[in-house]
Amino acid sequence: MRRSVTLKPDERIDELQRNGYGIIQSGKNFRFGMDAVLLSGFARVKKGETAVDLGTGTGIIPILLRAKTEGKLFYGLEIQPEMAEMAERSVYMNGLEDSVRIINGDIRDIIRAEGELKSLRGRVNVVTSNPPYMKTEHGIQNPEDMKAIARHEIKCSLLDVCMAAASLLTSGGRFYMVHRPLRLPEIILSLKECRLEPKRLKPVYPFLDKEANMILIEAVKDGAPECRFEKPLIVYKSPGVYTEEIYDIYGY
Amino acid sequence: MRRSVTLKPDERIDELQRNGYGIIQSGKNFRFGMDAVLLSGFARVKKGETAVDLGTGTGIIPILLRAKTEGKLFYGLEIQPEMAEMAERSVYMNGLEDSVRIINGDIRDIIRAEGELKSLRGRVNVVTSNPPYMKTEHGIQNPEDMKAIARHEIKCSLLDVCMAAASLLTSGGRFYMVHRPLRLPEIILSLKECRLEPKRLKPVYPFLDKEANMILIEAVKDGAPECRFEKPLIVYKSPGVYTEEIYDIYGY
Repeated sequence: MRRSVTLKPDERIDELQRNGYGIIQSGKNFRFGMDAVLLSGFARVKKGETAVDLGTGTGIIPILLRAKTEGKLFYGLEIQPEMAEMAERSVYMNGLEDSVRIINGDIRDIIRAEGELKSLRGRVNVVTSNPPYMKTEHGIQNPEDMKAIARHEIKCSLLDVCMAAASLLTSGGRFYMVHRPLRLPEIILSLKECRLEPKRLKPVYPFLDKEANMILIEAVKDGAPECRFEKPLIVYKSPGVYTEEIYDIYGY
Repeated sequence: MRRSVTLKPDERIDELQRNGYGIIQSGKNFRFGMDAVLLSGFARVKKGETAVDLGTGTGIIPILLRAKTEGKLFYGLEIQPEMAEMAERSVYMNGLEDSVRIINGDIRDIIRAEGELKSLRGRVNVVTSNPPYMKTEHGIQNPEDMKAIARHEIKCSLLDVCMAAASLLTSGGRFYMVHRPLRLPEIILSLKECRLEPKRLKPVYPFLDKEANMILIEAVKDGAPECRFEKPLIVYKSPGVYTEEIYDIYGY
């Protein structure tokens, strides 16, 4: 049973097809995409574990992981106050305050051992992130623009995200990220630099005969080098028609 | 029209389904696999270019590239004298001495600017390699065993192969390698260390619903970082039946 919440102009509630949960989104800022949903299907959170999502936006990933796994505590860290406040209302609406905590803060605070999450350093089992995909050099008009912050590395770089994940994780803890294949070499370098060993890669192809446009990555802190390429994830079997695997992840 | 050659005991001639070429193989030593054939389909050699294959074994890659491309000169470097001699007989049998040259030598000589290929340093357009996939620590019985040398990093490491490729290539030249996905993170690190930028990755899946067991990699010397994941290459559409793409590469 959802609680009622006050929506701002431009806001609406979308269904998550899981446990009756909904999520508040706004036309003004970044809305979650298939990337976040696929990441929540790829990430493994075991019973009783603690998970932190870096750059949580609408809060989609901690809310979906709460619905899909038996993890105990799910944190979502978001630098934009307006986004964090909206994500908090989604948590309240779904009645999840006991298990999902949205924190308004900076990923780089974790590296500096500052901020609300500093007490979790070295103690987290799972970190997830659907970080900004694009480097900043590609002409940003307005660096305070909320959509630009979600898409471009304005407030944090790929290496910042990896460093923050590595400082939160316990040895053997898992980091799950979704990103663009274009940057895979740099991603692997950044992970390795942070003692995060890539263990599982899953390229996502829009169609069987197209190049991959996303890649899902699992890295293990202090893991032994051995990297598996999972069976390809194909999104559409024909234009507009998802494959079974996608329907499965979406929970239809 | 093939020339006749003398076969040793254990040797046989296999058909390559290209230009009427054949190749001599022996039960005693390493025989080429699908890996080499897929690599020859993945590598691009343009008109008039020079290509060097590192660890050529039977000579399969230079011979197939000679059949499939308009390159001018194809070198195959092989450390094992017996293999090199056999590859040379294949070249002679197919009448390719003018365009395919087998050299008996050590990959590490290239890095040290020694050996027959030293004059090619910095002048080669394309380097290919189907190197040993396994590290040596996994219990080698006999380090002089010919099959073991082809499979394990006894005579050269992954980094040696990348360093040799980088010293041969001109700036902008292409390096093509086939390897195991398990070692992809290390491959990317080794390539980057040698200024070889990964540009094109193609995982090879035995079946659509199985994890990848090979990966084809194109890296460009001094290239800009931007890596594409090509459409997945699936080997079998049902047990024992190749997909169209595989038939195409094999030339049936």
